[in-house]
Amino acid sequence: MLVVMQHQATTEQVEQVVETIQKMGLAAHPMPGPTRTAIGITGNSSTVDPRSLEVLPGVRELIRVTQPYKLASREMHPDDSIIKARKANIGPGTFTIIAGPCSVESEENILQVADYLMSRGVHLLRAGAFKPRTSPYSFQGMEHEGLDILARAREKTGIGIVTEVMDTEQVQAVAQVADMMQIGTRNMQNFSLLKKVGVCGRPVLLKRGMSATLDEWLMAAEYLLAGGNPDVVLCERGVRTFTDHTRNTLDLSVVPPVKENSHLPIMIDPSHGTGRRKYVSAMALAGLAAGADGLMIEVHPDPGNAMSDGAQTLDFQEFDQLLNALKELAIPLGRTLA
Amino acid sequence: MLVVMQHQATTEQVEQVVETIQKMGLAAHPMPGPTRTAIGITGNSSTVDPRSLEVLPGVRELIRVTQPYKLASREMHPDDSIIKARKANIGPGTFTIIAGPCSVESEENILQVADYLMSRGVHLLRAGAFKPRTSPYSFQGMEHEGLDILARAREKTGIGIVTEVMDTEQVQAVAQVADMMQIGTRNMQNFSLLKKVGVCGRPVLLKRGMSATLDEWLMAAEYLLAGGNPDVVLCERGVRTFTDHTRNTLDLSVVPPVKENSHLPIMIDPSHGTGRRKYVSAMALAGLAAGADGLMIEVHPDPGNAMSDGAQTLDFQEFDQLLNALKELAIPLGRTLA
Amino acid sequence: MLVVMQHQATTEQVEQVVETIQKMGLAAHPMPGPTRTAIGITGNSSTVDPRSLEVLPGVRELIRVTQPYKLASREMHPDDSIIKARKANIGPGTFTIIAGPCSVESEENILQVADYLMSRGVHLLRAGAFKPRTSPYSFQGMEHEGLDILARAREKTGIGIVTEVMDTEQVQAVAQVADMMQIGTRNMQNFSLLKKVGVCGRPVLLKRGMSATLDEWLMAAEYLLAGGNPDVVLCERGVRTFTDHTRNTLDLSVVPPVKENSHLPIMIDPSHGTGRRKYVSAMALAGLAAGADGLMIEVHPDPGNAMSDGAQTLDFQEFDQLLNALKELAIPLGRTLA
Amino acid sequence: MLVVMQHQATTEQVEQVVETIQKMGLAAHPMPGPTRTAIGITGNSSTVDPRSLEVLPGVRELIRVTQPYKLASREMHPDDSIIKARKANIGPGTFTIIAGPCSVESEENILQVADYLMSRGVHLLRAGAFKPRTSPYSFQGMEHEGLDILARAREKTGIGIVTEVMDTEQVQAVAQVADMMQIGTRNMQNFSLLKKVGVCGRPVLLKRGMSATLDEWLMAAEYLLAGGNPDVVLCERGVRTFTDHTRNTLDLSVVPPVKENSHLPIMIDPSHGTGRRKYVSAMALAGLAAGADGLMIEVHPDPGNAMSDGAQTLDFQEFDQLLNALKELAIPLGRTLA
Repeated sequence: MLVVMQHQATTEQVEQVVETIQKMGLAAHPMPGPTRTAIGITGNSSTVDPRSLEVLPGVRELIRVTQPYKLASREMHPDDSIIKARKANIGPGTFTIIAGPCSVESEENILQVADYLMSRGVHLLRAGAFKPRTSPYSFQGMEHEGLDILARAREKTGIGIVTEVMDTEQVQAVAQVADMMQIGTRNMQNFSLLKKVGVCGRPVLLKRGMSATLDEWLMAAEYLLAGGNPDVVLCERGVRTFTDHTRNTLDLSVVPPVKENSHLPIMIDPSHGTGRRKYVSAMALAGLAAGADGLMIEVHPDPGNAMSDGAQTLDFQEFDQLLNALKELAIPLGRTLA
Repeated sequence: MLVVMQHQATTEQVEQVVETIQKMGLAAHPMPGPTRTAIGITGNSSTVDPRSLEVLPGVRELIRVTQPYKLASREMHPDDSIIKARKANIGPGTFTIIAGPCSVESEENILQVADYLMSRGVHLLRAGAFKPRTSPYSFQGMEHEGLDILARAREKTGIGIVTEVMDTEQVQAVAQVADMMQIGTRNMQNFSLLKKVGVCGRPVLLKRGMSATLDEWLMAAEYLLAGGNPDVVLCERGVRTFTDHTRNTLDLSVVPPVKENSHLPIMIDPSHGTGRRKYVSAMALAGLAAGADGLMIEVHPDPGNAMSDGAQTLDFQEFDQLLNALKELAIPLGRTLA
Repeated sequence: MLVVMQHQATTEQVEQVVETIQKMGLAAHPMPGPTRTAIGITGNSSTVDPRSLEVLPGVRELIRVTQPYKLASREMHPDDSIIKARKANIGPGTFTIIAGPCSVESEENILQVADYLMSRGVHLLRAGAFKPRTSPYSFQGMEHEGLDILARAREKTGIGIVTEVMDTEQVQAVAQVADMMQIGTRNMQNFSLLKKVGVCGRPVLLKRGMSATLDEWLMAAEYLLAGGNPDVVLCERGVRTFTDHTRNTLDLSVVPPVKENSHLPIMIDPSHGTGRRKYVSAMALAGLAAGADGLMIEVHPDPGNAMSDGAQTLDFQEFDQLLNALKELAIPLGRTLA
Repeated sequence: MLVVMQHQATTEQVEQVVETIQKMGLAAHPMPGPTRTAIGITGNSSTVDPRSLEVLPGVRELIRVTQPYKLASREMHPDDSIIKARKANIGPGTFTIIAGPCSVESEENILQVADYLMSRGVHLLRAGAFKPRTSPYSFQGMEHEGLDILARAREKTGIGIVTEVMDTEQVQAVAQVADMMQIGTRNMQNFSLLKKVGVCGRPVLLKRGMSATLDEWLMAAEYLLAGGNPDVVLCERGVRTFTDHTRNTLDLSVVPPVKENSHLPIMIDPSHGTGRRKYVSAMALAGLAAGADGLMIEVHPDPGNAMSDGAQTLDFQEFDQLLNALKELAIPLGRTLA
């Protein structure tokens, strides 16, 4: 960390900052310059709130240097993590697909999708039993009945289940059915939920919050890791910006910084990322080329009649075309679809 | 709603859209134009997901017209709501102050603040027992012990308590102590929590999400209102933008649109909104002038040693000066501080 | 500046950075820490591009500390500047109003507005002869004929003229008519224009770019000041964010940081800032309370028939009401309308 | 367009809106609904400013439907445009590379880069003679001397020149040297410049403004096309958002909407888009996969000593690796590098 003093700060003010830093158990390194003094701080600052230095007289600003996360950091864990979920190994070398409808709509529908996906070599099914909906008047999901349907689909077809958990009271029920528990974008900083899921013993797919910085996202992962759960997969699903040509702005440029700063795998959700069916495949291909470890994508036999998110959902024919394109593109990139 | 057809859409495609609209139980009004056809939709569309129209052939885009919220809407409730919390009446004519430290730190500290505030005519104390923190390694609040301290402060001083509830399992415990329950910015779309708080029988302070549109915010309020809780106060606390001169961007320009579209009161949090102590008072005065119904503001006897958020917290002397300035400014605006 | 080394950087890499800094004529201050080394840089770094340090092996990131602007900085010029434009003195103690139609539409219209404003004590008229329009098919302004009209209005009524200059070839013509030259938001970083206006000898109103940071804005002012023009007034007119309840997001929270970091006056444009007539007055009052030095505001005798921006323009009656409200609000704030 | 009336609007108010629309020479289609009336507008509305309808009594809001651009629109020009610049044909089937240093630094440097690029089959060189720099104290480019160097490099090596024009007074000089004139991000809405470049007879590379919507970008292209210049190539170079892991946010998800709405080619600038050398190649590959028509990319023999933008510039070895990767990736996508 670095404390930048004001231009006109006095020697006494500099000394007071140095003493305060030392009282925190840290080391202070004053650097006088021609127009102002800066004071470097070294030592383990993760337990102090350095913002309190900002209120000292003569201080202009405080600049953070160290990454706030530890367990999620590549510096502490140089090798890429590989996360197992049922038959999938999410991480280097592979490109894992998680596909399925937005919501669990009926047992028939889920079985149809599960059979279809398994026939295409896709081993992870996504479908929400609990649905976070902007409006209280929208369909809120089939809830526990939806979980039962997913459990039966898993049993009958062998497909792995990825499904969302929305609050702490659902964690146990969802953990019994899910091969991977999804934490949605609106819950990325639901810290109570992160703590509970951190001790539930299931792999987690952690979606990026709608306006989360990379540090905030990795700090949310840190909650899970600090709880003892090492199996965290990140998922970029579009962030909120000023643009209006897509529903969200799919931030593919977060992939290389995630790879640089963390050992955790990252997947891309081009369905929520674009919000429009006709843009999904191009962004899926771009996600593979950008270095992501997989896709989460919405597929439904009849998107026009899907109970939610039909406008961003591929039908089977479109998904077949995309799968073929991904397989071909994976070859020069040295990746294998799984 | 309005369906805009593509330039080259055929008559058959237009007819298919019209039929689909009619099957949804709505009325379709085709408007042929020189370059394209638009189709107006009237009827109660709140129960259908109109995005499914977007996947029909020949459709260019779908434009929403009606507000998605009902109970939060001024159209359904033309008069301003006045929300009572202990002695405060939040709404037209008054300007209500909620003040106090970021976190409950100790009984001594809370009593000192409560006595001070009551002596200044401020009847609502804010302080968090449960703290949403970006890092799992930061102080997470005194939790239930913190609630007990707040309960005792309420009993001894008569001050009203505003405190945050972070998850569904805390609702009952917080409701026993709080005169007003705060839902934080990271939980604005924690729909499970909104449903529980909607039936808890306590007034709610609903902070705006970090990147929430006005519609999304009022839809979150709609969850509370639809649960049967009419006592909702909105609180603007800064949104996330590209700027870096403040911690968040305090969106004072949301005040007039809130007043236009909703009957609910709105307060301003200049502490989180700016993140820097020296900017807080100017933004507090601007919030009053913009037409807000009150302030939520961080005050601590010794901000440099506060356990959290000291950098954005006023001390007693600064708060006294602000209170005096607010009182004078309220006069020409026809408002009374409370 | 501060160079942050990677966790695993070697001693040789740290030495190479130190040497590179010294070759730039700057001083290097290595600070070894438990997990990584940081290297402070002092000396006059304004002439080197420090980003080149980022490509050295072992460097994690480079953090700027010093403000990149000098002449615009309060540190170099502690006292508030007062900028004179015709009869106005823009700066501390006063609150200056610049008002008028978006565009020059006709001599009759301009004279009507000028007479009206002078009768209300408003001494600066805004109106565009050259209009930056998003569409090439929209009205582009009356151009040189418009300048002539403004010159005659100035002569007949004595009102000061504030009008926009859009490119370097117009500078001379606009300078002959304008008491203050406006640089629009889309030209804030038109550096060729800034250089020419910096030597034209007229006060300048520099609008903030649609997504300009505070540093970028003050750097644009620095271009003007470095050209020899000390008379620069900043004008906040709303920035671009994700929100949709206003046309732009009026960033009133930039006022205190401008005052902290610069000696230049700052005005507020609530017309462009909100884009909707019914929100303008509330934001004008908030701007005064936030500490701005004045307003630029759109006024027209018949906004419904204005040639541009009618939707955000006040009529005379609304403007009278606003002026009265501003006058009353200015009293407790110790300010005088001018 | 669609006018949405307020809930409580009277019949007279609806009639007044209808009459006003008709006076504009347009047709009005009232659609009474259960809670409010909407009024559809058809006819050629490109010449009226419909925002004036918003000020009529009883009007809630006005919603635009038609695209504001014509010549840039795919509806008016269904086939993809192919833009020729020297030997390059930018458009379907190919993937065109424009590469070179940020600035013209010396004749030796430019010749070295030009020879290198030609040897690798890259036929377009980028390098700025006029440089838009945030600070007036930074290197502003070699200006006319730089243009001369570019002209000689073109003559000696046969490479095509892409270089920036910053203001109207430079247009003629730049047009004499450039095979393609670049309009930079800060000048995307410099309408005076767009008008002059629209009649200069040279192909144009139009960079997206830092916070430009797709409509605004295509409207800027419309200025060029309306001037008579059909040869416009769009270039996405990152937009400004809240994120901090890259210098800008490269919006690859704009590629499919550009292709849907316009016939103009689109290129990607991953150098400015990310601002960090180590992220450039991944984003270049993703741009190809997303469907872009080419790349503009910064390459320099010694980025650590480049006069500007070294931190985001590839050296020859890195560029060779990227070219090879692009060539392999282009095969399954049915594209050829050029």
